[in-house]
Formats: sequence, C-alpha cells, structure tokens
Amino acid sequence: MNIEVEQDVMEVNRAYAADNRLLFRKYGLLTVNIMGSPGAGKTALLEHMLKYMQQHLKVAVIEGDLATAKDARRIAALGVNVIQINTDGGCHLDAKMIARVLPGFYLEDIDLLLIENVGNLVCPAAFDLGEDMRMVVMSITEGGDKPSKYPSAFMTADVVALNKMDILEHTDIDLEQTCADILQINPEALIFETCCRKGEVRGVDILADQLIARVKEKRKAAR
Amino acid sequence: MNIEVEQDVMEVNRAYAADNRLLFRKYGLLTVNIMGSPGAGKTALLEHMLKYMQQHLKVAVIEGDLATAKDARRIAALGVNVIQINTDGGCHLDAKMIARVLPGFYLEDIDLLLIENVGNLVCPAAFDLGEDMRMVVMSITEGGDKPSKYPSAFMTADVVALNKMDILEHTDIDLEQTCADILQINPEALIFETCCRKGEVRGVDILADQLIARVKEKRKAAR
Repeated sequence: MNIEVEQDVMEVNRAYAADNRLLFRKYGLLTVNIMGSPGAGKTALLEHMLKYMQQHLKVAVIEGDLATAKDARRIAALGVNVIQINTDGGCHLDAKMIARVLPGFYLEDIDLLLIENVGNLVCPAAFDLGEDMRMVVMSITEGGDKPSKYPSAFMTADVVALNKMDILEHTDIDLEQTCADILQINPEALIFETCCRKGEVRGVDILADQLIARVKEKRKAAR
Repeated sequence: MNIEVEQDVMEVNRAYAADNRLLFRKYGLLTVNIMGSPGAGKTALLEHMLKYMQQHLKVAVIEGDLATAKDARRIAALGVNVIQINTDGGCHLDAKMIARVLPGFYLEDIDLLLIENVGNLVCPAAFDLGEDMRMVVMSITEGGDKPSKYPSAFMTADVVALNKMDILEHTDIDLEQTCADILQINPEALIFETCCRKGEVRGVDILADQLIARVKEKRKAAR
C-alpha cells in the first residue's frame, strides 16, 4: 500500500511537471533546477551568475528553503524578480509547488528561470519540476567521495559546479579523481570549477555563458 | 489518504524505535544518532573520536549511506566493529533498518553504539532510531546561516560539532552569531569546535569525553 501511494505522489508530480514544461515551452524560457548540499554555495553562485547574466538576459529566480526568506532577500537585493517557497520542513521542491508560484511571474518577459532547490543532495533529484536542465553545486570542502556516495543527484545533472575552489589548497580533495568519478556516473556532465568569495570570483562567467548559450538554443528551437 | 499513510510510516517507526530503545536499555549501552550534510566531516570526526575512545570504551558503529561501503571500510580499518546500511537511494535511516542489523552485534559487549546517518540535514531528523542522544556535525564552510535555514536537525540535537575549524580563517562565517543562532533554536545544545584533518586534530577529545561521561551516567542509571 505504501508503494502504491508513492507511485501516486510520483504520478501527480509527473503530471504537474509536464504542465510546467508545456508552459515553459510556450513562453520559450529555459529553466534550471539547481541542487546541492546545504552550504555548497548555491545562493552565492546564483548571485554572481545573476550579476553577470543580467546584462545579457532577463532572469527570474525561485528560492526553495525549509524556512526563512534569507536567500530570496539576497537575490532581490540584485533587483532580480524572485519568489521564495518555504517547504516548512519538506526536503525538496516538487512540480506542484512550482506550478503554484508561476502565476507570480510575467513569464513572457523571462528568458531564464533559475530554481534553487532545498539544500539536500538526496531527495530533490527524484522530483522532476519540468525543468530543461539540472545543475549540481558541490563544494570541494565536502570531499571527493561525494559523487560515488550520492550518485542520484549527479546521475541526472547536465552541469556540475565544483565550488569554493579558492580554498582548494586547504582541503585534501583529489580533483582529478573527483571529476573522473562524476564522469563515470554521468559521462554527459559538464564540469565547471568555480569560486565566488568576496574578492575572488572565478569560473562563474564561463558557467553563465554555458547557460546563456542554452537559452539561445532553446529560443532558436522554439521558432 | 497520503497523510494517513504518512502517519502509518511514522507509527511503524515509533514502534521499532521503542523496541530498539528497550534493547539498548537492557544491555546498558548508549546510542548516538549522528547527522549532518554530506561532507560535514561526520566520518572523519568518528574516526578520530574512535581512536581516542577505544582506550576507554567498547564502541561499535552503524554506517548509513545511499551507496558504497566506503565509510564502513574506514571504520573497520581502526579495528572497530561496524555494519554498513545502504539505503539504495533512501534519504535517511529508520528504526526498522537499525532493528534489522542489531543481531549482527554482540550488544552485551558494547558500551557505545555510534550511528552515522545518511548525509542529509533534513530528513534524518524526523526519524527516531531509539537513540539516547543526537549529534549534528556542521562544517563551518557551510556558512553560518545553516542553523536558521535547517532548524529541524538542530532543534533536537544534544550536541553540535562545528567542524573543519582548521580552515576558519578561509571562510566568512561569524562563529559567535552561528552559536547564538543554534542556541536560539535549541538552548540545551552543547556546542563543540572541532577539526580532524591530518596533522591538525582539535576538540575531538573534549567531545569524546562528553560521550564517555554520558555512557557512565547511563550505566549508573541502569544499575
């Protein structure tokens, strides 16, 4: 019986995700589902990508958190349209939560919708939000064994950002082995090395350029 | 209907947790449920606590992971009795998983059972395993906003280890504010500052002494 209900939950989610996807296609906007552990640096990476991309694209953001609107305030401070979803303890965003907040945006005015999921390297990966792309942000301080120990998130990631590269020398991570492990789980993954600490921002523009290129591809396909 | 079934799952878990707790009381052993994000440093902290505690106590370990037996191998290398539970993608340990592996130990020979949960700062907190104590391990590289953004884990923690203190100067965390935030969520929490990198191990003995004291208390109460 438990299993049946779980299938129900997943079926409901798939239906909402399909609706979201249709809506995103209708308005020709690209959507990215951003996942990673708490403290991987997702919001900081978002902030710096937004600063760079704002010149090129109209971007909007959905922030998923258990509690507080701290992340949404950081994004709003950049003048970016943002909606915060608080899951009230829930461990992931689902497609219905996204569907519910979409009317809060003028979708026709958006090129790129970035969705920052709840900080959790496990559960979010199981829930399709209707997105075009998935990005996993992993802090190198988490250690190189994380891809093989948490394969589900990496398995479906189009893009992996290895973040906090500024403190590489203060960690024991074997970067080459970590990349090999990611590519063994997911040979299609594009891996970027980033850091976005005050005074030391690296790799963010290259990652943002990748997303900008995808936005243009999707627009071209939509014509 | 979903809610009913969720209550069922929680009720089943409570029943198994109560059985586990009875068993732990019968054999007079203390159990600690160790939680934290992926890469918080739970296993490294365990390794160093075990090295210190092995002189004083008989310790056994349960390792919870989505996949691989990497952590169990690290613990076994210290000559410590360890059982690995792979959840096959599941985001937390539950009391039934623990009940199933307990026959693999000689409980009468154990003073302290350390249970390392799946790396996840959200879901494990909802599942009582029958443990006496909860420890949250948080890497200071995760940033100081984590307690307020992920309150559920901190709310029920007896002990919080702020780990990776060796790279404090390479982060932007406000340690005093972080501790204040933890104590606002949970005024009873004991906070320890630790690091356990090769060549720089600090605070682990003080934390381990705290657990050793609790083992002795429990034994005294059992008599």
